[in-house]
Amino acid sequence: MKATVYVTIKQNVLDPQGTAVQGALHSMGFDEVGKVRIGKYLELQLDTADRGEAETRLKAMCEKLLANTVIEDYRFELEG
Amino acid sequence: MKATVYVTIKQNVLDPQGTAVQGALHSMGFDEVGKVRIGKYLELQLDTADRGEAETRLKAMCEKLLANTVIEDYRFELEG
Repeated sequence: MKATVYVTIKQNVLDPQGTAVQGALHSMGFDEVGKVRIGKYLELQLDTADRGEAETRLKAMCEKLLANTVIEDYRFELEG
Repeated sequence: MKATVYVTIKQNVLDPQGTAVQGALHSMGFDEVGKVRIGKYLELQLDTADRGEAETRLKAMCEKLLANTVIEDYRFELEG
């Protein structure tokens, strides 16, 4: 089963990396660029066939390691 | 218009960050985790109404700054 995890910074938390990218794009002439937010994108191969259990385990992985839930949100998709 | 950009490491390129996360998950008891690949996820607000032009400009941003096309692939979605 393949899992795709998206980890994003919460809306009310500053994203200095996004601000830096926005500044770089402006300096390159891409003036139409407004707010930029940067997150992580993870693809995991899971050796399990039970979708319900996979969801529970994946939630635990996100809470414990993949996302810092104080400042980040996460969501995931399962396929296969 | 809102753009979402996904930057992923090409399939035949090593992903040490993914390997480290895989090792960490295994050491935490998540033994079902196979290959892990880590990429970037960007959300950009674009101040333009022309979808065609937005696509062209976004492609240029990816080629020039957002992705290192030697080792990374990118794809994007536009909405609004």
